[in-house]
Amino acid sequence: MTQTLRVGVIGTGAMGADHVRTLHRWVPAARVVAVQDLDVARAKHLATEVGAEVAASAEDLIDPATVDAVVIASPDPTHAPLARAAIAAGLPVLCEKPLGTDPDESRSVVDAELAAGRRLVTVGFMRRFDPGYVSLKEAVAAGRVGSPRLVHNIHRNRVGHPSATTEGIVVNSMIHELDIVPWLLDSPIEQIEVTSPVADGFRDPQLAVLKLANGTLATVEVFIEAAYGYDVRCEVVGTGGTAALVPPALVAHAAGGVAGADVPPDFRPRFADAYRLELAAWADSVLDGVPVGPTAWEGHRATVVAAAGVASLREGRAVPVPQEPCPDLYV
Amino acid sequence: MTQTLRVGVIGTGAMGADHVRTLHRWVPAARVVAVQDLDVARAKHLATEVGAEVAASAEDLIDPATVDAVVIASPDPTHAPLARAAIAAGLPVLCEKPLGTDPDESRSVVDAELAAGRRLVTVGFMRRFDPGYVSLKEAVAAGRVGSPRLVHNIHRNRVGHPSATTEGIVVNSMIHELDIVPWLLDSPIEQIEVTSPVADGFRDPQLAVLKLANGTLATVEVFIEAAYGYDVRCEVVGTGGTAALVPPALVAHAAGGVAGADVPPDFRPRFADAYRLELAAWADSVLDGVPVGPTAWEGHRATVVAAAGVASLREGRAVPVPQEPCPDLYV
Amino acid sequence: MTQTLRVGVIGTGAMGADHVRTLHRWVPAARVVAVQDLDVARAKHLATEVGAEVAASAEDLIDPATVDAVVIASPDPTHAPLARAAIAAGLPVLCEKPLGTDPDESRSVVDAELAAGRRLVTVGFMRRFDPGYVSLKEAVAAGRVGSPRLVHNIHRNRVGHPSATTEGIVVNSMIHELDIVPWLLDSPIEQIEVTSPVADGFRDPQLAVLKLANGTLATVEVFIEAAYGYDVRCEVVGTGGTAALVPPALVAHAAGGVAGADVPPDFRPRFADAYRLELAAWADSVLDGVPVGPTAWEGHRATVVAAAGVASLREGRAVPVPQEPCPDLYV
Amino acid sequence: MTQTLRVGVIGTGAMGADHVRTLHRWVPAARVVAVQDLDVARAKHLATEVGAEVAASAEDLIDPATVDAVVIASPDPTHAPLARAAIAAGLPVLCEKPLGTDPDESRSVVDAELAAGRRLVTVGFMRRFDPGYVSLKEAVAAGRVGSPRLVHNIHRNRVGHPSATTEGIVVNSMIHELDIVPWLLDSPIEQIEVTSPVADGFRDPQLAVLKLANGTLATVEVFIEAAYGYDVRCEVVGTGGTAALVPPALVAHAAGGVAGADVPPDFRPRFADAYRLELAAWADSVLDGVPVGPTAWEGHRATVVAAAGVASLREGRAVPVPQEPCPDLYV
Repeated sequence: MTQTLRVGVIGTGAMGADHVRTLHRWVPAARVVAVQDLDVARAKHLATEVGAEVAASAEDLIDPATVDAVVIASPDPTHAPLARAAIAAGLPVLCEKPLGTDPDESRSVVDAELAAGRRLVTVGFMRRFDPGYVSLKEAVAAGRVGSPRLVHNIHRNRVGHPSATTEGIVVNSMIHELDIVPWLLDSPIEQIEVTSPVADGFRDPQLAVLKLANGTLATVEVFIEAAYGYDVRCEVVGTGGTAALVPPALVAHAAGGVAGADVPPDFRPRFADAYRLELAAWADSVLDGVPVGPTAWEGHRATVVAAAGVASLREGRAVPVPQEPCPDLYV
Repeated sequence: MTQTLRVGVIGTGAMGADHVRTLHRWVPAARVVAVQDLDVARAKHLATEVGAEVAASAEDLIDPATVDAVVIASPDPTHAPLARAAIAAGLPVLCEKPLGTDPDESRSVVDAELAAGRRLVTVGFMRRFDPGYVSLKEAVAAGRVGSPRLVHNIHRNRVGHPSATTEGIVVNSMIHELDIVPWLLDSPIEQIEVTSPVADGFRDPQLAVLKLANGTLATVEVFIEAAYGYDVRCEVVGTGGTAALVPPALVAHAAGGVAGADVPPDFRPRFADAYRLELAAWADSVLDGVPVGPTAWEGHRATVVAAAGVASLREGRAVPVPQEPCPDLYV
Repeated sequence: MTQTLRVGVIGTGAMGADHVRTLHRWVPAARVVAVQDLDVARAKHLATEVGAEVAASAEDLIDPATVDAVVIASPDPTHAPLARAAIAAGLPVLCEKPLGTDPDESRSVVDAELAAGRRLVTVGFMRRFDPGYVSLKEAVAAGRVGSPRLVHNIHRNRVGHPSATTEGIVVNSMIHELDIVPWLLDSPIEQIEVTSPVADGFRDPQLAVLKLANGTLATVEVFIEAAYGYDVRCEVVGTGGTAALVPPALVAHAAGGVAGADVPPDFRPRFADAYRLELAAWADSVLDGVPVGPTAWEGHRATVVAAAGVASLREGRAVPVPQEPCPDLYV
Repeated sequence: MTQTLRVGVIGTGAMGADHVRTLHRWVPAARVVAVQDLDVARAKHLATEVGAEVAASAEDLIDPATVDAVVIASPDPTHAPLARAAIAAGLPVLCEKPLGTDPDESRSVVDAELAAGRRLVTVGFMRRFDPGYVSLKEAVAAGRVGSPRLVHNIHRNRVGHPSATTEGIVVNSMIHELDIVPWLLDSPIEQIEVTSPVADGFRDPQLAVLKLANGTLATVEVFIEAAYGYDVRCEVVGTGGTAALVPPALVAHAAGGVAGADVPPDFRPRFADAYRLELAAWADSVLDGVPVGPTAWEGHRATVVAAAGVASLREGRAVPVPQEPCPDLYV
């Protein structure tokens, strides 16, 4: 028999519970042995479902004696401290995005890895495992669009979480594009300008223009209250042609004078495959000792760009993204 | 820990090896403990890859002492005998389609189950687990097309296997539609007429018209040498509208005066999800003791319809499908 | 100044009035100088709108002293007699389909032309001027599908006319496909089988399978009460690929969980361009003395096939299409 | 008979010749009686084709004794002077875009109309007559997208004219969007920022962000050397949904592993209908005495925005669009 990774999952809300169930149902390489949540009843319920233990605290769960790796899916402010704790314990960790709520926090995780002298963190930008985005990156890398010049991104949700804020649109939603665009084109973001057609209150939608180091420009629309459904699009435009994600749909309907397809209500059906592939690739990578997916450095850089985006939105101007030398560990 | 199903897989050619790897990588509920193939080297190679044993023969593999369930992916003529052997051993079995190469063979499996007094066989019509077909059936069941009147099916391959024959187009390819159409509409096929625009030699493509017991008509085009790629379509047309599979595509390309998307070369990318979902659902069903998916009876009926289709093609006329009373075991 | 064709239009119902207005607004090569209808008030209203005279009868209108050419858009039973009258008067005529309500009638028009020794009749199968069908035929002729093997046709209306009958579905609606398929593939229909999932009463939808002289098979679904809208599709399938009409749509909408496009309620928006191009090409052809479009012979052959289709539907079997030698006039 | 408009066309290059032929073939309400071009042979050739006279000069052509209205399709620098000459002669004029090569020029035409006390000029922004854009505007006006928040525009050509310049991309190409976006949303542009991923030389593609008076933001990509074909898209995004142009295609092809449709090589097939509808609507409007289409004021405003766009591109910053009170003549 091949080895099985003992995984502990911190946070059993929607995202964490999805991860636990995906690991349990679809990832033989991993076994969820422990879960933890401030809501103990919720944690117990889930633990029973998958045959795991409930840890008394996140700190208790991060224990090399009982787990081989950790998934962090607890609230955003806990991401960086828990990631540092996992690093301190020498445990590989898959940390939900954002890696930190501000650049200092995300940098602290990078610094912890640098101090440890090895990469242990994978940041949960699951789009990198989405077959559509992977195929898009392959097309670009294979030269099918010639030299890229522009990237157009659309990121729409049906309804926002009641806690959604103007800044949160950048830090929690747009951050997906702030990670994926540099990854697609292999070039960092140097400048960001974020504006909104809504001047006051909850400033949704938002429109960002990104300038990459290689000159490429990217547009990003994020619309939290787009009303009609969840819709993520990306088109890379180059000197030789274009490549774009195809909106996934299973069935086309014609009825009542309209021909079309249902749009999913949220991100789960759209990215269910991406989460499964992410978790499986991560489990394999830990077993193999070869890191995979977005690094702590990349998670940190996305947070830096997001912070510049928030500043841009506040100040009404384009903001240069502070650059830092990439540590050797991540080259 | 939850229970794990010990699975033995007979046949390690393309289909069997895919099943082994899918179980190994994506189905924690199952564990491939044994494989078998006449090509022993091939079996050993695969066994090593997944940590399984190599059984000396199919008969040796079908042993309740070492396996809890069996997957049959060996050549078509072996399906029925091996399915009967599994039934004799009291082992649940997922048998690749077709269940038999003729109605007598497939009926022998039904009779074996009737003798055993319980359902042990699931036939590998994987389309029933394809999210597209499932969504299509749900749409029909929910009344989104009103009362169904017609079903249009397209089933195209890029190139045929060198061993492909005129009759094999019905028995091996069209049989997917002969199973899926009655399933979609919950009504058996009563008549089939198969013709071809090609009068002699390898008669490809073929066009079938099916009449269902509820009056619905279905067209089926099967085109083995369609040249451009693998393409499966299905549209259900009713008094209130239509519902149709959307051809899956990840990325749209525009280049050189053409805007479009790549068509997959074969069925694997198209139905990879279906196979994974099939294997997982089957493993769960065995562990739960609740049969899932196409029954031996349904596999037999598809073979009966296929035989009528072959007769129709030969004789140049519509052929009524012999009806048999459905045994209580399958009601 | 170039010459202008003086046109008389018989019948000012929906179709005739459309023709008059299209000629008036979009065809400088023609001038509607006379209209006629049993409903004199309707004729007068339209005549005033376009500055034409009202003829006292169809026979009066067919007068070389006042018109250079005639459009026949009166009820179906009048088509053949009026076409013969125009031929007798030596006037070119654009006759709405069907050319005759039965093969004897349509043949009588052919015989009139043969007696006259020249082609004067163009039958109003407007699809031959539709940019989509024209492009489809060009693609087939250019070899883009390789050797054609199958043609799949869909022809759906939202609601039927109150006077619609089971036989009328063949004679009035399917007749479009009975003309277009031989035209697309340049091969006549040799056999037709028409069935319906509805056994009694108004037998709608209908499914036809056509066998062409070159071996190609064609399926035709005609569904008069398809409920969701007007939808015409055609796919030609060959050994090298396929070519299919794209459903025309101007705007895609996303709202309320659905992404799609409006389907037109009837054939007018779908074929408005085809009618305009037909009328302009016909006017030019008359001025140039070079016939264009479907001939009386082709109109007759479509009626012959339709009659065989009606027989097939009645008798529940495939019916061979009576063949006749093509007169030299039409070669 | 209804009245026919005598039209003189100045400029018989590609655009002018298309207008002459479209009027001749498709617009009975107009008659091309005179053409003029510096290339006399070219003008004569076209005049013979349509039965028109050749005027000795543009000034000679603008003569109410021989023409009732004028089409200006000569080189851009002649647009404003010729439009003023037509106004001076009291002749209605359809003037190709841009109305002027700079705001002073376009304003001079407005001033000439103000002096004349009546509107005589229609600017040739033909997209306003494109059935797609018209349908899009109707959808927005009908509230199908809720309150508009964003508009995304794509405007790609296959290859640029050898004379194409960085500034010309704004002034000649993007100007279409600078007119259409305010028209779609009924709100003027207040700010424009134009950037390019190409820092030097021919700065193509370009990306503009527009701010409208009502707060709406618009993105505009113009890519002259997009290589793959001519492609114009527009999506209006609102609080209730989205509406977007559907790329027109007649036939879908599947061959060689790709399923898709041909992209047109230039704007002519894409906007042939728009030009025809524009010319017919304009001829009718002149005959009826009711102006139609983009006014001189709107043509001037597009030029003002374009000039701000050029300044933005040069200076690397967002540029406010100078506002002027709308003269009563245009309210």
